Amino acid sequence: MEMLKKRIVEQAKVLGPDILKVDMFLNHMIDISLLKAIGEEFHRRFADEKINKILTVEASGIAVACMTAIAFGVPVVFAKKEEHSNVGGLCYTSDIYSFTRNIKTTICVSSSYLCASDRVLILDDFLANGSALTGLIDIARQAGSTLVGAGIVIEKGFQGGGNALRESGVRIESLAYIESMDDGIIVFG
Amino acid sequence: MEMLKKRIVEQAKVLGPDILKVDMFLNHMIDISLLKAIGEEFHRRFADEKINKILTVEASGIAVACMTAIAFGVPVVFAKKEEHSNVGGLCYTSDIYSFTRNIKTTICVSSSYLCASDRVLILDDFLANGSALTGLIDIARQAGSTLVGAGIVIEKGFQGGGNALRESGVRIESLAYIESMDDGIIVFG
Repeated sequence: MEMLKKRIVEQAKVLGPDILKVDMFLNHMIDISLLKAIGEEFHRRFADEKINKILTVEASGIAVACMTAIAFGVPVVFAKKEEHSNVGGLCYTSDIYSFTRNIKTTICVSSSYLCASDRVLILDDFLANGSALTGLIDIARQAGSTLVGAGIVIEKGFQGGGNALRESGVRIESLAYIESMDDGIIVFG
Repeated sequence: MEMLKKRIVEQAKVLGPDILKVDMFLNHMIDISLLKAIGEEFHRRFADEKINKILTVEASGIAVACMTAIAFGVPVVFAKKEEHSNVGGLCYTSDIYSFTRNIKTTICVSSSYLCASDRVLILDDFLANGSALTGLIDIARQAGSTLVGAGIVIEKGFQGGGNALRESGVRIESLAYIESMDDGIIVFG
């Protein structure tokens, strides 16, 4: 998606071998026009899939999910992180690991909001090692939902999580796939 | 806002003297059509205020903020909770207290994304004791921004936070103001 890649090149900051700061438009300040275009692009790619629910995880997935849900006309379900959880009742849970912050978190979704008849598109802002996405896939499968695929705004391909999941048969559409960012130079795949 | 009140009466669950569960449409599963209407209602109420930025706090404020930002055509900034924060650089911070979960959290906003020329509308899903809103107001003031007011989806008026802030001069527009919910019966003000 050229508009997104252009924005990354112009504004994103490479802060380390695997840290890309995009909080000026994606995950601290949110450029609503860009996210609207992102949502429309995900819709274009998954339009034929009869998706009836979008699944993401708090916090920074929520904006992407909502702006995409407008294009699909479907509800969003966001997994809660357990330290905040007051979900109550029966939940699907999965453990995810943040390598950036070096912490394990349990994410959960109430069984009331995800079920076997759902055709689910998972969305997230970033894909790196794939831990959050793997956790969301796990939750969709516990619910018996059909996983249509995953839409990712920025994939750091060199961290390998996305390609491992593709090999396992998951359809992943990343709008910006970063092959490398050595010496601060961002190379798209 | 009648559409919202109707939804609360039909679906919300009163789980205790001050806990209202609306996670079937607002803060776990998100009804995008309802949130679109909520965003348009906030726009109707604050349309003349030359707002150029919407401020909220992760996680459940993000959906409300994004859906309202579409109507205003402005960016969203969401405060991060410190345990997740990788904001870096100079930040405005404020301590908020969750009475529901009995924990103190520090919220922060990078000084890059809020400044003295901003005319800010604060949005959140709930207003109860007013701690989160007070923290966001504090952050807007640290930035020297003009606080236009606050838009709240559901205010639990009987918890008093909103009225204390109104008395201090803050304009607060709540789309559903709950006066009481004794014995599980929701009474709007």
